[in-house]
Amino acid sequence: MNHLIRKAQAKDMSDVLALITELAVFENEPNAVNISIDTLITHGTGSNPLFTCFVIEHEGEIVGMALVYYRFSTWEGKSLHLEDLIVSKKYRGKGYGKALYNEVMRYAKSQNVNRVEWVVLDWNTDAISFYENSGALFLKDWHLVQMNKERLQKYIDSIS
Amino acid sequence: MNHLIRKAQAKDMSDVLALITELAVFENEPNAVNISIDTLITHGTGSNPLFTCFVIEHEGEIVGMALVYYRFSTWEGKSLHLEDLIVSKKYRGKGYGKALYNEVMRYAKSQNVNRVEWVVLDWNTDAISFYENSGALFLKDWHLVQMNKERLQKYIDSIS
Repeated sequence: MNHLIRKAQAKDMSDVLALITELAVFENEPNAVNISIDTLITHGTGSNPLFTCFVIEHEGEIVGMALVYYRFSTWEGKSLHLEDLIVSKKYRGKGYGKALYNEVMRYAKSQNVNRVEWVVLDWNTDAISFYENSGALFLKDWHLVQMNKERLQKYIDSIS
Repeated sequence: MNHLIRKAQAKDMSDVLALITELAVFENEPNAVNISIDTLITHGTGSNPLFTCFVIEHEGEIVGMALVYYRFSTWEGKSLHLEDLIVSKKYRGKGYGKALYNEVMRYAKSQNVNRVEWVVLDWNTDAISFYENSGALFLKDWHLVQMNKERLQKYIDSIS
């Protein structure tokens, strides 16, 4: 495997958005991506970014990415969240996903965080096996809860 | 209900830690809290904090808190995560929890985020009913996955 992993720059965000969209399609949510290249540039570059994105190159072409940011756990303190990890379909099975995963874990260690956290769909058995084999802990008694912008507005209106 | 909600300052972090611990006990994880008052002061105050904590006062005494921070969703962009919301046991049922929840939602709206997200234990039926009644969406097909510091070190050793 001949590859290079580096942090994404503004010029890479078009490729990053394509990978985000490919992952959404894989997750059966092809219309879920409501962000733009500008959103990624605004929040992923500059002096105080909301996230850090690692990209992996194969012969100069970006074929995968892992996007992370800090969180704060009231149990463990500073932690790192792995939001997305994706390798483009035709490059899977070559070890690029594992290389990105390892980069994230080494980054977490270097940043001295006390936890790395992410979520996985319950039918994504390949990913689940990989995470299990790496020693990760699965918490199956928690539900994710969300308010999107429309739900939030409706709730705000109801309490005004 | 006579109450005041304000942002927590360094002097409040002792009370905040007591509330975090009370929540951990309620969640049947009495030994899970590995942070200190200093952790809360370091990451929750200053010019670039990792989180914002709202406290609610009853007659000058802190009786509840809600702790939030920004995340980045690759579907929705900038989002707000509600990490903990707790009202101390003897002050429950008086509307303080709802007041804190409303403050978080108003804050999310004022910060123009595109999503508010949190997690809830599947047996916490009172909380689940409250969130459902407020119009929140439950995602039950995702699992949380974590590496704590020990698991991370073990994995790093295995790939070195």
